[in-house]
Amino acid sequence: MDITLQQAEQAIEASKKKARELGLSMNIAVVDAGAHLKAFARNDGAWLGSIDIAIKKARTARYFDMNTGEIGKLSQPGGSLYNIEHSNDGLISFPGGIPIKNGDEEVIGAIGVSGSTVENDHEVAQAGVEVLL
Amino acid sequence: MDITLQQAEQAIEASKKKARELGLSMNIAVVDAGAHLKAFARNDGAWLGSIDIAIKKARTARYFDMNTGEIGKLSQPGGSLYNIEHSNDGLISFPGGIPIKNGDEEVIGAIGVSGSTVENDHEVAQAGVEVLL
Amino acid sequence: MDITLQQAEQAIEASKKKARELGLSMNIAVVDAGAHLKAFARNDGAWLGSIDIAIKKARTARYFDMNTGEIGKLSQPGGSLYNIEHSNDGLISFPGGIPIKNGDEEVIGAIGVSGSTVENDHEVAQAGVEVLL
Amino acid sequence: MDITLQQAEQAIEASKKKARELGLSMNIAVVDAGAHLKAFARNDGAWLGSIDIAIKKARTARYFDMNTGEIGKLSQPGGSLYNIEHSNDGLISFPGGIPIKNGDEEVIGAIGVSGSTVENDHEVAQAGVEVLL
Repeated sequence: MDITLQQAEQAIEASKKKARELGLSMNIAVVDAGAHLKAFARNDGAWLGSIDIAIKKARTARYFDMNTGEIGKLSQPGGSLYNIEHSNDGLISFPGGIPIKNGDEEVIGAIGVSGSTVENDHEVAQAGVEVLL
Repeated sequence: MDITLQQAEQAIEASKKKARELGLSMNIAVVDAGAHLKAFARNDGAWLGSIDIAIKKARTARYFDMNTGEIGKLSQPGGSLYNIEHSNDGLISFPGGIPIKNGDEEVIGAIGVSGSTVENDHEVAQAGVEVLL
Repeated sequence: MDITLQQAEQAIEASKKKARELGLSMNIAVVDAGAHLKAFARNDGAWLGSIDIAIKKARTARYFDMNTGEIGKLSQPGGSLYNIEHSNDGLISFPGGIPIKNGDEEVIGAIGVSGSTVENDHEVAQAGVEVLL
Repeated sequence: MDITLQQAEQAIEASKKKARELGLSMNIAVVDAGAHLKAFARNDGAWLGSIDIAIKKARTARYFDMNTGEIGKLSQPGGSLYNIEHSNDGLISFPGGIPIKNGDEEVIGAIGVSGSTVENDHEVAQAGVEVLL
Protein backbone atom coordinates (compact mmCIF):
# COMPACT_ATOMS: atom_id res chain seq x y z
CA MET A 1 0.00 0.00 0.00
CA ASP A 2 1.28 3.42 -0.90
CA ILE A 3 0.13 6.87 0.15
CA THR A 4 -1.91 8.73 -2.48
CA LEU A 5 -1.32 12.34 -3.46
CA GLN A 6 -4.71 13.16 -1.98
CA GLN A 7 -3.65 11.69 1.37
CA ALA A 8 -0.30 13.46 1.25
CA GLU A 9 -2.03 16.77 0.61
CA GLN A 10 -4.47 16.11 3.46
CA ALA A 11 -1.52 15.52 5.77
CA ILE A 12 0.19 18.71 4.64
CA GLU A 13 -3.00 20.73 5.08
CA ALA A 14 -3.43 19.38 8.62
CA SER A 15 0.18 20.23 9.44
CA LYS A 16 -0.18 23.70 7.94
CA LYS A 17 -3.28 24.28 10.05
CA LYS A 18 -1.44 23.23 13.22
CA ALA A 19 1.52 25.46 12.31
CA ARG A 20 -0.85 28.37 11.81
CA GLU A 21 -2.42 27.77 15.23
CA LEU A 22 1.05 27.77 16.80
CA GLY A 23 2.14 30.83 14.79
CA LEU A 24 5.02 28.97 13.10
CA SER A 25 6.54 28.98 9.60
CA MET A 26 7.32 25.42 8.61
CA ASN A 27 8.74 23.20 5.89
CA ILE A 28 6.55 20.10 5.49
CA ALA A 29 7.53 17.08 3.38
CA VAL A 30 5.68 13.83 2.70
CA VAL A 31 7.37 10.79 1.18
CA ASP A 32 5.74 7.63 -0.14
CA ALA A 33 6.29 3.98 0.83
CA GLY A 34 9.46 4.00 -1.28
CA ALA A 35 10.79 7.03 0.67
CA HIS A 36 10.47 9.24 -2.42
CA LEU A 37 9.10 12.80 -2.23
CA LYS A 38 5.34 12.87 -2.76
CA ALA A 39 4.36 16.41 -1.68
CA PHE A 40 6.01 19.42 -0.10
CA ALA A 41 5.09 22.91 1.12
CA ARG A 42 7.14 25.72 2.64
CA ASN A 43 5.45 28.52 4.55
CA ASP A 44 6.51 32.04 3.61
CA GLY A 45 9.43 33.04 5.80
CA ALA A 46 10.34 29.51 6.87
CA TRP A 47 14.07 28.75 7.24
CA LEU A 48 15.77 27.89 3.96
CA GLY A 49 17.96 25.33 5.72
CA SER A 50 14.87 23.42 6.80
CA ILE A 51 13.86 22.36 3.29
CA ASP A 52 16.50 19.67 3.23
CA ILE A 53 15.96 18.80 6.89
CA ALA A 54 12.19 18.30 6.44
CA ILE A 55 12.76 16.01 3.47
CA LYS A 56 15.54 14.09 5.27
CA LYS A 57 13.32 13.68 8.37
CA ALA A 58 10.53 12.19 6.26
CA ARG A 59 12.96 9.85 4.50
CA THR A 60 14.64 8.82 7.73
CA ALA A 61 11.28 8.00 9.32
CA ARG A 62 10.36 5.73 6.41
CA TYR A 63 13.84 4.24 6.06
CA PHE A 64 13.49 2.73 9.54
CA ASP A 65 9.71 2.92 10.13
CA MET A 66 10.13 4.82 13.36
CA ASN A 67 10.05 8.39 14.63
CA THR A 68 13.29 10.19 13.80
CA GLY A 69 13.84 11.08 17.45
CA GLU A 70 14.07 7.36 18.34
CA ILE A 71 17.06 6.99 16.05
CA GLY A 72 18.75 9.96 17.67
CA LYS A 73 18.65 8.19 21.04
CA LEU A 74 20.76 5.39 19.56
CA SER A 75 23.15 7.50 17.44
CA GLN A 76 24.82 9.38 20.28
CA PRO A 77 28.50 8.87 21.13
CA GLY A 78 28.80 5.39 22.65
CA GLY A 79 25.35 4.41 21.35
CA SER A 80 24.68 1.36 19.24
CA LEU A 81 24.00 3.37 16.06
CA TYR A 82 26.69 6.00 16.60
CA ASN A 83 26.89 8.36 13.62
CA ILE A 84 24.34 6.48 11.53
CA GLU A 85 23.64 9.94 10.09
CA HIS A 86 26.50 9.36 7.66
CA SER A 87 24.45 6.82 5.71
CA ASN A 88 21.90 7.39 2.98
CA ASP A 89 23.36 10.74 1.92
CA GLY A 90 22.55 12.11 5.36
CA LEU A 91 19.92 11.16 7.92
CA ILE A 92 18.27 13.50 10.41
CA SER A 93 17.85 11.82 13.76
CA PHE A 94 16.12 14.43 15.90
CA PRO A 95 12.32 14.74 16.25
CA GLY A 96 10.03 15.92 13.45
CA GLY A 97 9.84 12.82 11.22
CA ILE A 98 7.00 10.30 11.71
CA PRO A 99 5.89 7.26 9.67
CA ILE A 100 2.41 7.49 8.19
CA LYS A 101 0.24 4.39 8.63
CA ASN A 102 -3.10 3.41 7.17
CA GLY A 103 -5.98 1.88 9.16
CA ASP A 104 -4.36 -1.57 8.94
CA GLU A 105 -1.16 -0.34 10.64
CA GLU A 106 0.77 -0.60 7.38
CA VAL A 107 3.39 2.10 6.82
CA ILE A 108 2.40 3.87 3.60
CA GLY A 109 4.83 6.80 3.80
CA ALA A 110 6.21 9.37 6.23
CA ILE A 111 6.07 13.07 7.08
CA GLY A 112 8.92 15.38 8.05
CA VAL A 113 8.58 18.87 9.50
CA SER A 114 11.31 21.45 10.20
CA GLY A 115 11.26 25.12 11.08
CA SER A 116 11.04 25.54 14.86
CA THR A 117 12.04 23.65 18.02
CA VAL A 118 12.06 19.89 17.69
CA GLU A 119 9.06 19.74 20.01
CA ASN A 120 7.06 22.03 17.70
CA ASP A 121 8.33 20.23 14.61
CA HIS A 122 7.11 16.93 16.06
CA GLU A 123 3.73 18.35 17.06
CA VAL A 124 3.11 19.77 13.58
CA ALA A 125 4.18 16.47 11.99
CA GLN A 126 1.89 14.55 14.35
CA ALA A 127 -1.09 16.62 13.19
CA GLY A 128 -0.36 15.50 9.64
CA VAL A 129 -0.17 11.85 10.62
CA GLU A 130 -3.34 11.86 12.71
CA VAL A 131 -5.62 13.22 10.01
CA LEU A 132 -4.99 10.01 8.03
CA LEU A 133 -5.69 7.55 10.84
CA MET B 1 9.85 39.85 -4.95
CA ASP B 2 9.44 36.22 -4.01
CA ILE B 3 6.66 33.78 -4.79
CA THR B 4 4.30 33.04 -1.89
CA LEU B 5 3.20 29.56 -0.87
CA GLN B 6 -0.34 30.49 -1.91
CA GLN B 7 0.89 31.37 -5.41
CA ALA B 8 2.99 28.22 -5.62
CA GLU B 9 -0.01 26.10 -4.66
CA GLN B 10 -2.19 27.88 -7.23
CA ALA B 11 0.38 27.08 -9.91
CA ILE B 12 0.52 23.42 -8.87
CA GLU B 13 -3.29 23.16 -8.86
CA ALA B 14 -3.47 24.63 -12.37
CA SER B 15 -0.80 22.20 -13.58
CA LYS B 16 -2.55 19.26 -11.93
CA LYS B 17 -5.81 20.25 -13.64
CA LYS B 18 -4.08 20.38 -17.02
CA ALA B 19 -2.42 17.01 -16.40
CA ARG B 20 -5.82 15.52 -15.54
CA GLU B 21 -7.32 16.88 -18.76
CA LEU B 22 -4.50 15.29 -20.72
CA GLY B 23 -4.72 12.04 -18.76
CA LEU B 24 -1.14 12.30 -17.48
CA SER B 25 0.64 11.52 -14.19
CA MET B 26 3.13 14.25 -13.42
CA ASN B 27 5.75 15.49 -10.98
CA ILE B 28 5.33 19.24 -10.43
CA ALA B 29 7.88 21.40 -8.57
CA VAL B 30 7.86 25.11 -7.77
CA VAL B 31 10.98 26.95 -6.58
CA ASP B 32 11.23 30.47 -5.17
CA ALA B 33 13.30 33.43 -6.39
CA GLY B 34 16.36 31.88 -4.73
CA ALA B 35 15.78 28.61 -6.63
CA HIS B 36 14.82 26.80 -3.40
CA LEU B 37 11.93 24.31 -3.32
CA LYS B 38 8.67 25.98 -2.34
CA ALA B 39 6.01 23.36 -3.18
CA PHE B 40 5.85 19.96 -4.85
CA ALA B 41 3.26 17.36 -5.83
CA ARG B 42 3.54 13.97 -7.52
CA ASN B 43 0.52 12.35 -9.10
CA ASP B 44 -0.12 8.72 -8.18
CA GLY B 45 1.70 6.51 -10.65
CA ALA B 46 4.06 9.22 -11.92
CA TRP B 47 7.63 8.13 -12.73
CA LEU B 48 9.95 8.07 -9.72
CA GLY B 49 12.84 9.30 -11.84
CA SER B 50 10.92 12.44 -12.62
CA ILE B 51 10.97 13.78 -9.05
CA ASP B 52 14.54 14.96 -9.43
CA ILE B 53 14.00 16.04 -13.03
CA ALA B 54 11.02 18.23 -12.14
CA ILE B 55 12.97 19.90 -9.34
CA LYS B 56 16.06 20.37 -11.54
CA LYS B 57 13.91 21.81 -14.35
CA ALA B 58 12.43 24.38 -11.97
CA ARG B 59 15.89 25.27 -10.64
CA THR B 60 17.40 25.49 -14.11
CA ALA B 61 14.64 27.83 -15.30
CA ARG B 62 15.31 30.15 -12.36
CA TYR B 63 19.09 29.83 -12.57
CA PHE B 64 19.03 31.40 -16.04
CA ASP B 65 15.59 33.05 -16.14
CA MET B 66 14.61 31.22 -19.31
CA ASN B 67 12.70 28.13 -20.41
CA THR B 68 14.81 25.02 -19.92
CA GLY B 69 14.37 24.04 -23.56
CA GLU B 70 16.16 27.22 -24.66
CA ILE B 71 19.29 26.10 -22.83
CA GLY B 72 19.10 22.71 -24.52
CA LYS B 73 19.28 24.36 -27.91
CA LEU B 74 22.67 25.83 -26.94
CA SER B 75 24.10 22.84 -25.07
CA GLN B 76 24.12 20.37 -27.96
CA PRO B 77 27.41 19.01 -29.36
CA GLY B 78 29.05 21.90 -31.17
CA GLY B 79 26.79 24.44 -29.43
CA SER B 80 28.09 27.38 -27.43
CA LEU B 81 27.03 25.92 -24.07
CA TYR B 82 27.95 22.27 -24.75
CA ASN B 83 27.75 20.19 -21.57
CA ILE B 84 26.61 23.08 -19.36
CA GLU B 85 24.52 20.38 -17.64
CA HIS B 86 27.60 19.45 -15.58
CA SER B 87 27.29 22.66 -13.57
CA ASN B 88 25.17 23.34 -10.51
CA ASP B 89 25.00 19.69 -9.44
CA GLY B 90 23.17 18.90 -12.66
CA LEU B 91 20.94 20.98 -14.90
CA ILE B 92 18.04 19.72 -17.01
CA SER B 93 18.02 21.45 -20.38
CA PHE B 94 15.02 20.00 -22.18
CA PRO B 95 11.52 21.51 -22.03
CA GLY B 96 9.32 21.51 -18.93
CA GLY B 97 10.89 24.26 -16.81
CA ILE B 98 9.54 27.83 -17.04
CA PRO B 99 10.25 30.99 -14.99
CA ILE B 100 7.28 32.40 -13.07
CA LYS B 101 6.80 36.18 -13.34
CA ASN B 102 4.57 38.59 -11.51
CA GLY B 103 2.56 41.37 -13.15
CA ASP B 104 5.66 43.61 -13.24
CA GLU B 105 7.61 41.06 -15.30
CA GLU B 106 9.85 40.26 -12.33
CA VAL B 107 10.90 36.62 -12.01
CA ILE B 108 9.59 35.44 -8.63
CA GLY B 109 10.30 31.73 -9.03
CA ALA B 110 9.97 28.88 -11.53
CA ILE B 111 8.01 25.70 -12.20
CA GLY B 112 9.29 22.36 -13.44
CA VAL B 113 7.18 19.47 -14.70
CA SER B 114 8.28 15.95 -15.61
CA GLY B 115 6.42 12.73 -16.33
CA SER B 116 5.52 12.56 -20.02
CA THR B 117 6.86 13.81 -23.36
CA VAL B 118 8.70 17.11 -23.18
CA GLU B 119 5.86 18.70 -25.13
CA ASN B 120 3.34 17.56 -22.53
CA ASP B 121 5.68 18.50 -19.69
CA HIS B 122 5.97 22.01 -21.11
CA GLU B 123 2.21 22.36 -21.63
CA VAL B 124 1.46 21.33 -18.06
CA ALA B 125 4.14 23.72 -16.73
CA GLN B 126 2.73 26.51 -18.88
CA ALA B 127 -0.71 26.07 -17.28
CA GLY B 128 0.90 26.63 -13.89
CA VAL B 129 2.65 29.79 -15.03
CA GLU B 130 -0.39 31.31 -16.72
CA VAL B 131 -2.66 31.11 -13.70
CA LEU B 132 -0.37 33.60 -11.92
CA LEU B 133 -0.22 36.18 -14.73
CA MET C 1 15.28 42.70 0.08
CA ASP C 2 18.56 41.35 -1.14
CA ILE C 3 22.12 42.49 -0.43
CA THR C 4 23.78 44.43 -3.27
CA LEU C 5 27.29 43.78 -4.54
CA GLN C 6 28.29 47.19 -3.23
CA GLN C 7 27.11 46.25 0.26
CA ALA C 8 28.80 42.87 0.08
CA GLU C 9 32.08 44.51 -0.90
CA GLN C 10 31.74 47.04 1.93
CA ALA C 11 31.30 44.18 4.38
CA ILE C 12 34.34 42.35 3.02
CA GLU C 13 36.47 45.51 3.18
CA ALA C 14 35.47 46.08 6.80
CA SER C 15 36.30 42.47 7.66
CA LYS C 16 39.63 42.69 5.85
CA LYS C 17 40.47 45.83 7.80
CA LYS C 18 39.68 44.11 11.10
CA ALA C 19 41.74 41.06 10.08
CA ARG C 20 44.67 43.34 9.27
CA GLU C 21 44.41 45.04 12.66
CA LEU C 22 44.48 41.62 14.33
CA GLY C 23 47.30 40.40 12.09
CA LEU C 24 45.23 37.52 10.65
CA SER C 25 44.86 35.89 7.24
CA MET C 26 41.21 35.16 6.58
CA ASN C 27 38.71 33.71 4.13
CA ILE C 28 35.64 35.97 3.94
CA ALA C 29 32.43 35.00 2.15
CA VAL C 30 29.18 36.92 1.69
CA VAL C 31 25.96 35.23 0.51
CA ASP C 32 22.72 36.87 -0.58
CA ALA C 33 19.19 36.42 0.77
CA GLY C 34 18.93 33.16 -1.17
CA ALA C 35 22.15 31.88 0.46
CA HIS C 36 24.02 32.11 -2.86
CA LEU C 37 27.61 33.40 -3.02
CA LYS C 38 27.74 37.14 -3.68
CA ALA C 39 31.37 38.07 -2.94
CA PHE C 40 34.47 36.39 -1.58
CA ALA C 41 38.07 37.26 -0.70
CA ARG C 42 40.95 35.20 0.66
CA ASN C 43 43.95 36.87 2.25
CA ASP C 44 47.36 35.73 1.04
CA GLY C 45 48.48 32.83 3.19
CA ALA C 46 45.04 32.02 4.58
CA TRP C 47 44.22 28.33 5.11
CA LEU C 48 43.00 26.56 1.99
CA GLY C 49 40.60 24.46 4.06
CA SER C 50 38.87 27.60 5.22
CA ILE C 51 37.50 28.53 1.79
CA ASP C 52 34.71 25.99 2.07
CA ILE C 53 34.24 26.66 5.78
CA ALA C 54 33.79 30.41 5.24
CA ILE C 55 31.22 29.79 2.52
CA LYS C 56 29.39 27.14 4.58
CA LYS C 57 29.36 29.47 7.63
CA ALA C 58 27.75 32.21 5.57
CA ARG C 59 25.18 29.78 4.15
CA THR C 60 24.43 28.26 7.53
CA ALA C 61 23.84 31.71 9.06
CA ARG C 62 21.34 32.53 6.32
CA TYR C 63 19.74 29.08 6.30
CA PHE C 64 18.60 29.59 9.90
CA ASP C 65 18.89 33.38 10.33
CA MET C 66 21.13 33.05 13.36
CA ASN C 67 24.81 33.07 14.26
CA THR C 68 26.43 29.76 13.40
CA GLY C 69 27.69 29.33 16.95
CA GLU C 70 24.11 29.25 18.22
CA ILE C 71 23.42 26.15 16.15
CA GLY C 72 26.53 24.48 17.52
CA LYS C 73 25.20 24.84 21.06
CA LEU C 74 22.19 22.72 20.04
CA SER C 75 23.97 20.19 17.85
CA GLN C 76 26.24 18.68 20.50
CA PRO C 77 25.86 15.05 21.59
CA GLY C 78 22.63 14.89 23.55
CA GLY C 79 21.47 18.25 22.17
CA SER C 80 18.18 18.75 20.39
CA LEU C 81 19.79 19.25 16.97
CA TYR C 82 22.52 16.60 17.27
CA ASN C 83 24.27 16.04 13.94
CA ILE C 84 22.22 18.65 12.04
CA GLU C 85 25.52 19.26 10.20
CA HIS C 86 24.68 16.33 7.93
CA SER C 87 21.95 18.35 6.22
CA ASN C 88 22.24 20.81 3.35
CA ASP C 89 25.43 19.25 1.97
CA GLY C 90 27.21 20.16 5.18
CA LEU C 91 26.61 22.92 7.72
CA ILE C 92 29.26 24.61 9.86
CA SER C 93 27.94 25.16 13.38
CA PHE C 94 30.80 26.88 15.20
CA PRO C 95 31.21 30.68 15.35
CA GLY C 96 32.15 32.85 12.38
CA GLY C 97 28.87 33.06 10.44
CA ILE C 98 26.47 35.97 11.06
CA PRO C 99 23.27 37.08 9.28
CA ILE C 100 23.43 40.52 7.64
CA LYS C 101 20.41 42.74 8.27
CA ASN C 102 19.34 46.04 6.79
CA GLY C 103 18.01 49.01 8.78
CA ASP C 104 14.54 47.42 8.90
CA GLU C 105 15.88 44.29 10.62
CA GLU C 106 15.31 42.24 7.48
CA VAL C 107 17.92 39.56 6.78
CA ILE C 108 19.42 40.42 3.37
CA GLY C 109 22.30 37.94 3.39
CA ALA C 110 25.05 36.61 5.64
CA ILE C 111 28.81 36.68 6.13
CA GLY C 112 31.14 33.81 6.99
CA VAL C 113 34.75 34.10 8.11
CA SER C 114 37.30 31.33 8.65
CA GLY C 115 41.05 31.31 9.17
CA SER C 116 41.83 31.66 12.86
CA THR C 117 40.26 30.82 16.23
CA VAL C 118 36.48 30.86 16.25
CA GLU C 119 36.63 33.93 18.48
CA ASN C 120 38.72 35.79 15.93
CA ASP C 121 36.59 34.48 13.06
CA HIS C 122 33.49 35.82 14.77
CA GLU C 123 35.08 39.20 15.52
CA VAL C 124 36.15 39.67 11.91
CA ALA C 125 32.70 38.65 10.66
CA GLN C 126 31.09 41.04 13.12
CA ALA C 127 33.09 43.93 11.67
CA GLY C 128 31.61 43.15 8.27
CA VAL C 129 28.08 43.07 9.59
CA GLU C 130 28.37 46.29 11.57
CA VAL C 131 29.51 48.44 8.68
CA LEU C 132 26.12 47.85 7.02
CA LEU C 133 23.96 48.72 10.03
CA MET D 1 54.44 32.07 -7.90
CA ASP D 2 50.89 32.57 -6.75
CA ILE D 3 48.40 35.34 -7.42
CA THR D 4 47.94 37.78 -4.54
CA LEU D 5 44.57 38.97 -3.27
CA GLN D 6 45.48 42.45 -4.49
CA GLN D 7 46.05 41.11 -8.01
CA ALA D 8 42.85 39.07 -7.91
CA GLU D 9 40.89 42.14 -6.88
CA GLN D 10 42.52 44.19 -9.65
CA ALA D 11 41.43 41.55 -12.15
CA ILE D 12 37.88 41.53 -10.83
CA GLU D 13 37.71 45.34 -10.93
CA ALA D 14 38.90 45.36 -14.55
CA SER D 15 36.32 42.72 -15.48
CA LYS D 16 33.58 44.60 -13.66
CA LYS D 17 34.52 47.76 -15.57
CA LYS D 18 34.34 45.93 -18.88
CA ALA D 19 30.98 44.39 -17.93
CA ARG D 20 29.67 47.84 -17.06
CA GLU D 21 30.79 49.20 -20.43
CA LEU D 22 29.00 46.34 -22.17
CA GLY D 23 25.90 46.72 -19.96
CA LEU D 24 26.17 43.15 -18.59
CA SER D 25 25.59 41.52 -15.20
CA MET D 26 28.33 39.01 -14.56
CA ASN D 27 29.68 36.45 -12.13
CA ILE D 28 33.47 36.79 -11.88
CA ALA D 29 35.71 34.26 -10.10
CA VAL D 30 39.48 34.20 -9.62
CA VAL D 31 41.35 31.09 -8.46
CA ASP D 32 44.97 30.82 -7.35
CA ALA D 33 47.80 28.65 -8.68
CA GLY D 34 46.33 25.72 -6.75
CA ALA D 35 42.94 26.25 -8.47
CA HIS D 36 41.35 27.33 -5.19
CA LEU D 37 38.94 30.28 -4.98
CA LYS D 38 40.76 33.54 -4.25
CA ALA D 39 38.14 36.23 -4.97
CA PHE D 40 34.62 36.42 -6.35
CA ALA D 41 32.00 39.05 -7.21
CA ARG D 42 28.46 38.77 -8.58
CA ASN D 43 26.78 41.79 -10.15
CA ASP D 44 23.26 42.53 -8.95
CA GLY D 45 20.83 40.68 -11.18
CA ALA D 46 23.39 38.26 -12.62
CA TRP D 47 22.16 34.69 -13.24
CA LEU D 48 22.23 32.49 -10.14
CA GLY D 49 23.26 29.50 -12.24
CA SER D 50 26.40 31.33 -13.33
CA ILE D 51 28.01 31.36 -9.86
CA ASP D 52 29.03 27.76 -10.19
CA ILE D 53 29.85 28.13 -13.88
CA ALA D 54 32.19 31.10 -13.30
CA ILE D 55 34.04 29.20 -10.57
CA LYS D 56 34.23 26.03 -12.68
CA LYS D 57 35.53 28.02 -15.67
CA ALA D 58 38.31 29.51 -13.56
CA ARG D 59 39.22 26.10 -12.15
CA THR D 60 39.10 24.42 -15.55
CA ALA D 61 41.42 27.08 -17.03
CA ARG D 62 43.98 26.48 -14.28
CA TYR D 63 43.56 22.70 -14.25
CA PHE D 64 44.86 22.58 -17.82
CA ASP D 65 46.55 26.00 -18.21
CA MET D 66 44.52 26.87 -21.28
CA ASN D 67 41.40 28.80 -22.21
CA THR D 68 38.27 26.80 -21.40
CA GLY D 69 37.04 27.08 -24.98
CA GLU D 70 40.09 25.15 -26.19
CA ILE D 71 39.06 22.16 -24.11
CA GLY D 72 35.55 22.32 -25.56
CA LYS D 73 36.96 21.83 -29.04
CA LEU D 74 38.41 18.49 -27.93
CA SER D 75 35.52 17.27 -25.77
CA GLN D 76 32.90 17.01 -28.51
CA PRO D 77 31.46 13.65 -29.59
CA GLY D 78 34.25 11.81 -31.42
CA GLY D 79 36.88 14.19 -30.04
CA SER D 80 39.95 13.06 -28.18
CA LEU D 81 38.73 14.36 -24.80
CA TYR D 82 35.08 13.40 -25.26
CA ASN D 83 33.09 14.14 -22.09
CA ILE D 84 36.10 15.21 -20.04
CA GLU D 85 33.52 17.41 -18.26
CA HIS D 86 32.71 14.41 -16.04
CA SER D 87 36.04 14.76 -14.24
CA ASN D 88 36.96 17.00 -11.31
CA ASP D 89 33.39 17.29 -10.04
CA GLY D 90 32.44 18.99 -13.31
CA LEU D 91 34.42 21.01 -15.80
CA ILE D 92 33.09 23.83 -17.97
CA SER D 93 34.60 23.66 -21.44
CA PHE D 94 33.09 26.64 -23.26
CA PRO D 95 34.70 30.10 -23.38
CA GLY D 96 34.96 32.41 -20.37
CA GLY D 97 37.85 30.86 -18.43
CA ILE D 98 41.42 32.11 -18.98
CA PRO D 99 44.72 31.41 -17.17
CA ILE D 100 46.33 34.42 -15.48
CA LYS D 101 50.07 34.81 -16.09
CA ASN D 102 52.65 37.08 -14.56
CA GLY D 103 55.29 38.99 -16.52
CA ASP D 104 57.48 35.86 -16.70
CA GLU D 105 54.74 33.85 -18.45
CA GLU D 106 54.17 31.78 -15.32
CA VAL D 107 50.55 30.78 -14.65
CA ILE D 108 49.69 32.22 -11.24
CA GLY D 109 45.93 31.58 -11.30
CA ALA D 110 42.90 31.86 -13.57
CA ILE D 111 39.73 33.87 -14.06
CA GLY D 112 36.25 32.63 -14.98
CA VAL D 113 33.32 34.78 -16.10
CA SER D 114 29.70 33.75 -16.70
CA GLY D 115 26.49 35.69 -17.26
CA SER D 116 26.04 36.41 -20.96
CA THR D 117 27.01 34.89 -24.31
CA VAL D 118 30.28 33.00 -24.33
CA GLU D 119 31.79 35.74 -26.50
CA ASN D 120 30.91 38.38 -23.90
CA ASP D 121 32.01 36.12 -21.06
CA HIS D 122 35.41 35.68 -22.72
CA GLU D 123 35.80 39.41 -23.41
CA VAL D 124 35.06 40.32 -19.79
CA ALA D 125 37.46 37.64 -18.56
CA GLN D 126 40.14 38.89 -20.97
CA ALA D 127 39.90 42.39 -19.46
CA GLY D 128 40.70 40.89 -16.08
CA VAL D 129 43.70 39.02 -17.39
CA GLU D 130 45.16 41.95 -19.30
CA VAL D 131 45.26 44.32 -16.37
CA LEU D 132 47.82 42.03 -14.71
CA LEU D 133 50.15 41.70 -17.71
